[in-house]
Amino acid sequence: MTQLLALDAGGTSTRAVALDHDGEVLGLGRSTAGNPTAAGIVPAAEAVAAAARAALPPGTTSDMAVLAMAGEQSDAFRAEVEQRLAAYGVTRVVLDHDLLALFCSGTASLEGYALIAGTGTVAARVRDGSLERVVGGRGWLLGDAGGGFWIGREVVRAVVSALDGQAEATALTQDVLGALGIVADPAYEAGRVSAIRQLVSAVYARRPVALAELAPLAFAAAAAGDPVARRVVVAASEALADLLDAVRVPDLEGPVVVGGSVVARGVLQAPPALSVDLTPPARGVAVTAVPDGLVGAAVLALRHTGAEVDDARFERLRAAIRLPQPA
Amino acid sequence: MTQLLALDAGGTSTRAVALDHDGEVLGLGRSTAGNPTAAGIVPAAEAVAAAARAALPPGTTSDMAVLAMAGEQSDAFRAEVEQRLAAYGVTRVVLDHDLLALFCSGTASLEGYALIAGTGTVAARVRDGSLERVVGGRGWLLGDAGGGFWIGREVVRAVVSALDGQAEATALTQDVLGALGIVADPAYEAGRVSAIRQLVSAVYARRPVALAELAPLAFAAAAAGDPVARRVVVAASEALADLLDAVRVPDLEGPVVVGGSVVARGVLQAPPALSVDLTPPARGVAVTAVPDGLVGAAVLALRHTGAEVDDARFERLRAAIRLPQPA
Repeated sequence: MTQLLALDAGGTSTRAVALDHDGEVLGLGRSTAGNPTAAGIVPAAEAVAAAARAALPPGTTSDMAVLAMAGEQSDAFRAEVEQRLAAYGVTRVVLDHDLLALFCSGTASLEGYALIAGTGTVAARVRDGSLERVVGGRGWLLGDAGGGFWIGREVVRAVVSALDGQAEATALTQDVLGALGIVADPAYEAGRVSAIRQLVSAVYARRPVALAELAPLAFAAAAAGDPVARRVVVAASEALADLLDAVRVPDLEGPVVVGGSVVARGVLQAPPALSVDLTPPARGVAVTAVPDGLVGAAVLALRHTGAEVDDARFERLRAAIRLPQPA
Repeated sequence: MTQLLALDAGGTSTRAVALDHDGEVLGLGRSTAGNPTAAGIVPAAEAVAAAARAALPPGTTSDMAVLAMAGEQSDAFRAEVEQRLAAYGVTRVVLDHDLLALFCSGTASLEGYALIAGTGTVAARVRDGSLERVVGGRGWLLGDAGGGFWIGREVVRAVVSALDGQAEATALTQDVLGALGIVADPAYEAGRVSAIRQLVSAVYARRPVALAELAPLAFAAAAAGDPVARRVVVAASEALADLLDAVRVPDLEGPVVVGGSVVARGVLQAPPALSVDLTPPARGVAVTAVPDGLVGAAVLALRHTGAEVDDARFERLRAAIRLPQPA
């Protein structure tokens, strides 16, 4: 019996599902980072193969694989993946955009909008089951306002300004100094000077994109009522709303599907006390948050075989594809 | 006869002047980058020694050296410099902040403000001949709005947005594509997509701070009337004015001394047609632009010996210390 493989390759992990041509789920798998930009071409291709192997029931093979991934679709990466998946019978590899897989993870509709807010941010308009317009996704250096890097940078800037006496004090100061292992007493001028020096050094000693690791501090402090953190989170939410506005057109209402670590951790799951200020990214339109693009990759795999995925089949897929989330 | 050495160590070049205790200039010298952060500790110390050697008349020595430099004053760098300058008789090395040297390059006054807008930005309040308050200077990753990196990043963002159809067209597009050697025809959709892909790849392939090299394109395009470039330059000028405001206090009026590549190339030397929009950094207070901190390093060297530097002596120093500017 031939099967289908659907894979969602991300910068942290790769997720896979094996299913039959009727959409019945036969197995699930997970492995390490499968994005060639994040992990390198060969390690990423190996991660894709490992996730496929974990998902396929022992002794079975698959004829087609759909791989959802972010960024450029390089021929070199495709060749590495094809070579490895050939061992499982795969003769056809289809690469799809992770934004489309994310959208299809939240709805059976063929049109609407998708927004990813992870370390970076990107939004898309979907029409006729394809991406019609993509905005953002230029990376940390050129934009991606509202993403994890941007939030982490705003957090550090707020802390430096507070230590410097340029801006108001914030609970983020102790949080950030603690997270970076900086020992200094901000109650005294000498301690503040030392804290700034250590903080700036620590930030420049790491990869710039590592600032994204500090983003969760903003959500926690905002939830605890810190006004500085709250302003950062509200500004992030507004930036995401602006990004979504950039792809919206009047003749296409929704739905809106959102995903990514920022969405999962903070902006959409803000405590009720903050919800008035935290403009939802969709500005009034119903929003569905999804953990990843795996359900959508399965939807796309079925559609690539010519099968139709209606609401009922979509709901069965969504119920069956539940990978335990990593810690 | 004992002499004094005054040195201004920057990220691009190191400048030196030898003078006697009456402030008579005996020689000038220039060498390569003398900032340990930019060049490394040993190469920077060697550049300092090379500039000193070039400035000292043959066969003469100096007992004291004042070295103006940006950033942290590390003991390791000081030791390397002391060891090398000992060969020229130097028994006392004084490290001063480049902001103070810049200020003293523009005025004999003991109080006022200094602003550096190069790749990054930093401002200071000077009182009693010392730095009383310093704001900014956190580097490209954490701020420095209005500096060369910031301007270069805004230029690339404007070009990407223009190519993407998100923002208005700008003459910067051809300028940036040309500067980065990108071949694509933005008149067609496929050309725009290719241009964005190449542009983003080129930017991430370089050091982030290399974005500063694109800043001069903004000044040139703004001068030629491009509204997008003009907005970038005006925003930079406003950011510099804000930075200066952050150190200003009512009881200390000025003067204001400014320096750095952004000041030299663009914001303050904007053509008359732009001058209405280009708020001068000092917002109404007289501004003196200086090419570097070498005159100020000489002023500081004399003051460290206990000598007074009044307006007349300052003007003589300024007239005598004229290094040819590198191309």
